[in-house]
Amino acid sequence: MGGSLAMALRPYLPHLTLVDTNPHTLQQAQPWADVITADFATGIASADWIILATPARTILHLLAELPTLKPTGCLVLDLGSTKAEICQAMEQLPGTFQAIGGHPMCGKETAGFAAATPSLFQNQTFILCHTSRTTSQLEQLTLEMLSWLGASPLFLPPALHDELVAAVSHLPYVVSAVLMQTIATQHNPQAWQVSASGFRDTTRLAGSDPHMMLDILLMNKTAVLAHIDQYQNHLETLKHLLQNSQEHELADWLANTQHLYEAYRSQRP
Amino acid sequence: MGGSLAMALRPYLPHLTLVDTNPHTLQQAQPWADVITADFATGIASADWIILATPARTILHLLAELPTLKPTGCLVLDLGSTKAEICQAMEQLPGTFQAIGGHPMCGKETAGFAAATPSLFQNQTFILCHTSRTTSQLEQLTLEMLSWLGASPLFLPPALHDELVAAVSHLPYVVSAVLMQTIATQHNPQAWQVSASGFRDTTRLAGSDPHMMLDILLMNKTAVLAHIDQYQNHLETLKHLLQNSQEHELADWLANTQHLYEAYRSQRP
Repeated sequence: MGGSLAMALRPYLPHLTLVDTNPHTLQQAQPWADVITADFATGIASADWIILATPARTILHLLAELPTLKPTGCLVLDLGSTKAEICQAMEQLPGTFQAIGGHPMCGKETAGFAAATPSLFQNQTFILCHTSRTTSQLEQLTLEMLSWLGASPLFLPPALHDELVAAVSHLPYVVSAVLMQTIATQHNPQAWQVSASGFRDTTRLAGSDPHMMLDILLMNKTAVLAHIDQYQNHLETLKHLLQNSQEHELADWLANTQHLYEAYRSQRP
Repeated sequence: MGGSLAMALRPYLPHLTLVDTNPHTLQQAQPWADVITADFATGIASADWIILATPARTILHLLAELPTLKPTGCLVLDLGSTKAEICQAMEQLPGTFQAIGGHPMCGKETAGFAAATPSLFQNQTFILCHTSRTTSQLEQLTLEMLSWLGASPLFLPPALHDELVAAVSHLPYVVSAVLMQTIATQHNPQAWQVSASGFRDTTRLAGSDPHMMLDILLMNKTAVLAHIDQYQNHLETLKHLLQNSQEHELADWLANTQHLYEAYRSQRP
């Protein structure tokens, strides 16, 4: 995500420093930056604007380091997948900092610079969360950056963001990952040969970066668990209809499912 | 599926009759056939070769009608999504019939002639199931047809087919449909706005034709229920790791999931 952002922003920025602890990533990033470094303190020393694009718990660690590393303050945006804790941490920053929470809704299941593309954000929703450290100057600059990316801003309170992404992002990951575990651990060599696009699409999210997902699940645990409970109830309903061969009710459930899917796709073609 | 097959086979057949009970489908099919009819008996009267491309239980009904409607027999192939019951029914046909079970692994979530495309089968696996009514003449003709489609044949015993598709096709549908039900019935108007490609891919199968899925679930009930049980166990495992914040075990589970996904994709790029 950070790589895609660097590629997309490069033409608009007078200076870009990229910080990454992975030497391979740094090497790949070289053409897209003026300076590359593995050291956060060095990287942010003269920055006017810091964009934190790491797993969510690392963002919390980095935010906690900022007051010491950069007492003069600057502008801060993050791309973390959860927002409540991160926005709270932003509000603890000294008054020299201006900070806004961000979450572009356009992840890929493949991470790293090799998978980066500057068009990743085009026509995608980019969620922004106000904090008590968000100034109108920072909001305007962030909106201008979104226009460079071709992304559409959507302002949400951090708690509502976390509730919504539990529904449309974190639960889908769980569902996809559990499907992968269920089938792959059966060790049936012919299963992959028979599998087609339906299996591929339904399991795509199972390929998500485990470090990123660990932070997401732990930081949004309450909302994710609540959604898993609801999912289990719906699955139990379908299972009982099938166990009892309740053909009429099963037919209604399946038709209703298709109807719900089509209503969703009519909103998100 | 039948529409895509008609388009793909049209250049190779001296005569093609299409039978469908939906007048709209028949109208759309007109350019691709010599004769269109809503009446099965009329459609098959002079056929040398019948391909049954309907939901699986309808295939059973049609197979049961064949001996009366066409006592002189002919070649029969079906495209049904389950194979054990259909192949059993094929074996009940009089000796004037030659019959082979088929299942192209390339469904779309959109049904009907409007969604049909002659390239649907290209580079896809087309499962074939021998029956006691399968002659080498029919097998050769079917393999020739697959070469016209650009599909790769995979011969499987009917019971193994049903077990494998329960794993890589029917369980993924269940998982996807339950996700759609869980989120859509929360009636949160902002959910769709926040949703992105992850949600779209994971729910794609929820749009599957409910008539087709009803037949599939009922005809493959035992295998599907067994897979749902396993899925529930894996989901419960993940839920407990998260509930107890077992960070180390959760990290292992997530990393293992990504590893399993990558192993699968290395087999099915």
